[in-house]
Amino acid sequence: MNSEKLIVETQYLTFDSLVLDNKEELQKVTIAYETYGKLNEKKNNAILITHAFTGDAHCAGYHAGDEKPGWWDNMVGPAKAFDTDKYFIICSNILGGCQGSTGPSSINPKTGREYGLDFPAISISDMVRAQKKLIDFLGIKKLFSVAGGSMGGMQVLQWVNDYPENIVSAIPIATTMSHSPQQIAFNEVGRQSVMADIAWNGGHYYGTGNPERGLSVARMLGHITYMSDISMKEKFPIEKEKERNSKFNFNADFEVEEYLRHRGSTFVKRFDANSYLYISKAMDHFDVETDDFLNNKNADIKFLVLSFKSDWLYPAEQSENIVKFLKLRGQKVTYCNIESTYGHDAFLLEKEDEGKIITSFLNNLYEEVISGK
Amino acid sequence: MNSEKLIVETQYLTFDSLVLDNKEELQKVTIAYETYGKLNEKKNNAILITHAFTGDAHCAGYHAGDEKPGWWDNMVGPAKAFDTDKYFIICSNILGGCQGSTGPSSINPKTGREYGLDFPAISISDMVRAQKKLIDFLGIKKLFSVAGGSMGGMQVLQWVNDYPENIVSAIPIATTMSHSPQQIAFNEVGRQSVMADIAWNGGHYYGTGNPERGLSVARMLGHITYMSDISMKEKFPIEKEKERNSKFNFNADFEVEEYLRHRGSTFVKRFDANSYLYISKAMDHFDVETDDFLNNKNADIKFLVLSFKSDWLYPAEQSENIVKFLKLRGQKVTYCNIESTYGHDAFLLEKEDEGKIITSFLNNLYEEVISGK
Repeated sequence: MNSEKLIVETQYLTFDSLVLDNKEELQKVTIAYETYGKLNEKKNNAILITHAFTGDAHCAGYHAGDEKPGWWDNMVGPAKAFDTDKYFIICSNILGGCQGSTGPSSINPKTGREYGLDFPAISISDMVRAQKKLIDFLGIKKLFSVAGGSMGGMQVLQWVNDYPENIVSAIPIATTMSHSPQQIAFNEVGRQSVMADIAWNGGHYYGTGNPERGLSVARMLGHITYMSDISMKEKFPIEKEKERNSKFNFNADFEVEEYLRHRGSTFVKRFDANSYLYISKAMDHFDVETDDFLNNKNADIKFLVLSFKSDWLYPAEQSENIVKFLKLRGQKVTYCNIESTYGHDAFLLEKEDEGKIITSFLNNLYEEVISGK
Repeated sequence: MNSEKLIVETQYLTFDSLVLDNKEELQKVTIAYETYGKLNEKKNNAILITHAFTGDAHCAGYHAGDEKPGWWDNMVGPAKAFDTDKYFIICSNILGGCQGSTGPSSINPKTGREYGLDFPAISISDMVRAQKKLIDFLGIKKLFSVAGGSMGGMQVLQWVNDYPENIVSAIPIATTMSHSPQQIAFNEVGRQSVMADIAWNGGHYYGTGNPERGLSVARMLGHITYMSDISMKEKFPIEKEKERNSKFNFNADFEVEEYLRHRGSTFVKRFDANSYLYISKAMDHFDVETDDFLNNKNADIKFLVLSFKSDWLYPAEQSENIVKFLKLRGQKVTYCNIESTYGHDAFLLEKEDEGKIITSFLNNLYEEVISGK
């Protein structure tokens, strides 16, 4: 174990163009990324970590001066599940994002102004296409693994679909092959909340400020779906003898209200509203539950599929469906439905069980593929 | 069975004042109500139906010229569960509402203008206090039953708490003794959505128009919580081969989006935003899970508690908790957790099972209390 803070820096790769699923061509595309650990000589120890909806490239270590580490620091680092003593870990901010990669808030080279809604619609497949360019740039032919939770898991499945010969293993976590009506519905309410804010102004708010009210409400709703009924009860034991006010009260009467408001108001400082719209649409249109998936391809990928028992946003049935789909295509799949009360957030928090299961899965492959024992 | 349309009219009772839980006194309080069937001579066949969050007094029959009947017409009428051939059914719009009863959108007699946020905070107990005045006015000493689902069920439990000697039986459906943090959280997101709309204007929007955008988003979210994952899948089978647009698409790409938008936009025509805020707060503060509940009172009430298996907003555990609480106080309780895929909406839709169970419960009591066999 390394008790010193690992200081990391975000890097940027810019390529001239990227042709999207919808045939639109983006010019001068930048992808923000971080790496941890060392790429070995054979370049066969690289693992790509893919992030969830509002995540970023900073999944581990500390940026200089920061108190808080990256979003999956409990899983990525020396002697951790994604062991940086063994593996070369790559994490990049998705295309369409707002944390260093090209997205709606980036400058459109054709106009010299922010894209706004002139940014083309993007898909999960487009995000993965940009990641593939990054992997090519790093000189990696075959990834040892691709791993991620939630929308990160969608990217994992998209890698399997689009580049099956370029990955040894895949770890889709707390995810689905396509969104259910309920999942689309929650995203749609978030989008409508953003667009209902007049500060959104048809997507033209750069210079006048993020539509903070609408985006904040969307984030508050998101947080409810990321937690479980139980984890909320554990986090917010309700005080019974609340004093009633004689007037309607704008203050938070309950701790859970305070918490959600705080989460909403901090989120809007770091996240672009248009990115929120574009990315949520990409999720809603994601669908690898097709006849094409892994058909007529010489794929020999090892899968570890993980879900969490209290996750009601991406319920275990959806992971079981992935397992079934893979098994019907003759793939090697390990599946665990991990005990947890954290809800969907469990994939970020259940470091003990999740960590051990991933460690064991990767260790077995490590001996087979990398150390050559 | 009566195949003719039962034409009904809303009636109004105005009383001079109502003192609220918080000691505020409301002047000139009007309660909108409807009745169906006939009150017998002994005045012992009256059933009070209490409505949910956004319901109204019109629970059965048709208003002249209307195509659509009242909101519980499948349960209330001749030979139905709440049989108007036997019972005198009363349903009133809650205090704080906007469908005929006094609420924030009513004229404040002190100022001659709408109350807005000068309307005092109200509780479920205040709603029930107003209902008691209506019952007194109708000359009914003891209700044969009080029945309602969701927030209607809260009013049922509040009747049990506040006026145990004035009811023979109680039917709380798909409800709870107090809101969980998750339930409060969903309400809070709805409130924040309303208040984020600048048209809300601190509650002063009468004359300038309801804050439709924010209220619509709140309603869309509500609808998700009223349905179940399964009922949404059944209602909105997702078309797989959706064409992708090259630009970000403001149209509804999926049927579920269209549906929710429609529900949102029709809701804002009929419901006052401030009522939404006040009533949701009353629900969040509702709490009869106290030592006082039915303690030291000579209550001999027959209970029928109902929940629905796919209801995740008011899950069966909360009804089981009501049953436990009542049993610990020595009450006579029948409990059914009804099979359904409709989610929380089941209490409005599962007319077969719900209807039969209520019919049987009431029939037994009818012989005991009313027909005197």
